[in-house]
Amino acid sequence: MKVRVVLDAMGGDFAPQEIIKGGVLAKKEYKKDLELLLVGDKHIIEEELKKRGADFKDFEIIHAPEIIKMADSPAKAVKRKKESSIVRGIELLKNNYADAFVSAGSTGAVVAGSVLNLGLLPGIMRPGIAILVPSLKGKTLIIDVGANIDPKPIHLLQYAVMGRAYYKLILGKDNVKIGILNIGEEETKGTEFLKETRLLLQKSDLNFIGNVEAKDIYSGKCEVIVCDGFAGNIALKVSEGFAEIMSKFLFDNLRKGFLGKLGLLFIKEGLKNFKKIIDYSEYGGAPLLGVNGIVIISHGRSNAKAIKNAIKVAITEVERNLNEKITQEIKNVRM
Amino acid sequence: MKVRVVLDAMGGDFAPQEIIKGGVLAKKEYKKDLELLLVGDKHIIEEELKKRGADFKDFEIIHAPEIIKMADSPAKAVKRKKESSIVRGIELLKNNYADAFVSAGSTGAVVAGSVLNLGLLPGIMRPGIAILVPSLKGKTLIIDVGANIDPKPIHLLQYAVMGRAYYKLILGKDNVKIGILNIGEEETKGTEFLKETRLLLQKSDLNFIGNVEAKDIYSGKCEVIVCDGFAGNIALKVSEGFAEIMSKFLFDNLRKGFLGKLGLLFIKEGLKNFKKIIDYSEYGGAPLLGVNGIVIISHGRSNAKAIKNAIKVAITEVERNLNEKITQEIKNVRM
Repeated sequence: MKVRVVLDAMGGDFAPQEIIKGGVLAKKEYKKDLELLLVGDKHIIEEELKKRGADFKDFEIIHAPEIIKMADSPAKAVKRKKESSIVRGIELLKNNYADAFVSAGSTGAVVAGSVLNLGLLPGIMRPGIAILVPSLKGKTLIIDVGANIDPKPIHLLQYAVMGRAYYKLILGKDNVKIGILNIGEEETKGTEFLKETRLLLQKSDLNFIGNVEAKDIYSGKCEVIVCDGFAGNIALKVSEGFAEIMSKFLFDNLRKGFLGKLGLLFIKEGLKNFKKIIDYSEYGGAPLLGVNGIVIISHGRSNAKAIKNAIKVAITEVERNLNEKITQEIKNVRM
Repeated sequence: MKVRVVLDAMGGDFAPQEIIKGGVLAKKEYKKDLELLLVGDKHIIEEELKKRGADFKDFEIIHAPEIIKMADSPAKAVKRKKESSIVRGIELLKNNYADAFVSAGSTGAVVAGSVLNLGLLPGIMRPGIAILVPSLKGKTLIIDVGANIDPKPIHLLQYAVMGRAYYKLILGKDNVKIGILNIGEEETKGTEFLKETRLLLQKSDLNFIGNVEAKDIYSGKCEVIVCDGFAGNIALKVSEGFAEIMSKFLFDNLRKGFLGKLGLLFIKEGLKNFKKIIDYSEYGGAPLLGVNGIVIISHGRSNAKAIKNAIKVAITEVERNLNEKITQEIKNVRM
């Protein structure tokens, strides 16, 4: 059976062009697994599809003329803008008309809209956004990177359980090591909130290794790192800024002088692979875990490739019954 | 007049070897500006100096046999371990026997020891660790990166004033732009603490540009970014971990295949310059601003070059009367 994915055509810095282009790419690549619904302003969507020479029959268009802007208060916007692509998109999940929702629009609105309209999975108290980043040993999952900036220790325990379930689902690795993002490994480090979280995780039956430092996100000391959404968001966005400046410094320096320019020709392939590793668009979207539906949040600066990959993530989560597994694991965990 | 710098010979992952090597390098390079005091276990220091063929007359050794370990509680350690290199080193400043203290040891202990023994500058309520990182437009100063993980809005206002003074002193740029590290630029973003901080900075006469995102640390959107010590520490350490993994991925990919290896020969110079930009040891230490004395905190993993550069920072701060300037600016700022 095909997975029915709703794509928010209006969300993101490069919407609607890059979003719809990503949808068209995904439809081509995952033809046999995917039914794609595009939600947003019908006229704009049709125009974009026409421009790309796409076959209208390949897509279902859901008209939603309102747009939630980045400056809108998320909680208010999802209550007032019922005709927005985010609210309509999430409603399609709620009404079982579709299986997953992908949006590069306002993260706050997607989170608020999902909690309000889909509700949370049984036993879950707060949702968290999870993201996979490359590490020296494979991949690290960070949760939460921005759904909940003021969580309680119990929420982080639940993030750990959800993160572990997601890691297993996507990467096949069981009972992965869990760490708490902190400013030092020692028990005495960090805020009271983190010290309480540490005690809670120690009591659980998770494979908990204690505090990890921010550099361990990339060293791969553990597979899942839990943190509040503020710290997680900082960690993620610093990396982004750093990747940009490093690339620029690297190329500026390599381009200097004749030898450097010549050398660049030889290392083209290597650089291409390198860029692929650090390019966030390769990783697609970040799942909003804990809500009663499959919701994928894509980066605001998503290009077509990022959207295509986010749709792939959505298909995988639906096919592998992520939310059933999370519900089961939350029931079983010792808290 | 020469600046008298105390170097903590026992602090840091590579102490005493790299620390003392750094001291010897600094003494050679800044001969006419520097009198260097080495604090720590006398026998170990002498042995290290001997190994390097250094002239004992070039250094004053202050015996301090105790060591504060990373696992020690900072507040307790500075009260109990009176014979530690950190406590003795700071005492030399307090007694006006030296002008500056440089340590790669326990950050918490250096902060606690400084506050306890030196006290704060007039008007300052909390100290903050400032660090300069490269940006697309020059340099960004982040304060605080770990002295105070639970600050109040007024502390961040004072960080802004101190950061501005430091930026001017070191880089000569006046009235620089100030931003608050947050998870989004919009006024509605972030914790209540950050919203209050924003109001406070808006009312001040600082050149305040509002919230900035973590990626702006490297984009250079403003020159000074204020944050709580937890967020700042995360931002800094993520960068460190990311620099490591990027370098590894880059070289792994470049080395693949014959052309890549050949190309690497041509781009050697460019890569060297690139590495220099992202190498924290080039930037030396981070000043602990707000305490009544010049205290430089070096990275725990400091090598000799990092120590040498930290000593250079200390000399500059003393020569340019940093603390007088901070005291003046704090007096003048509208709060």
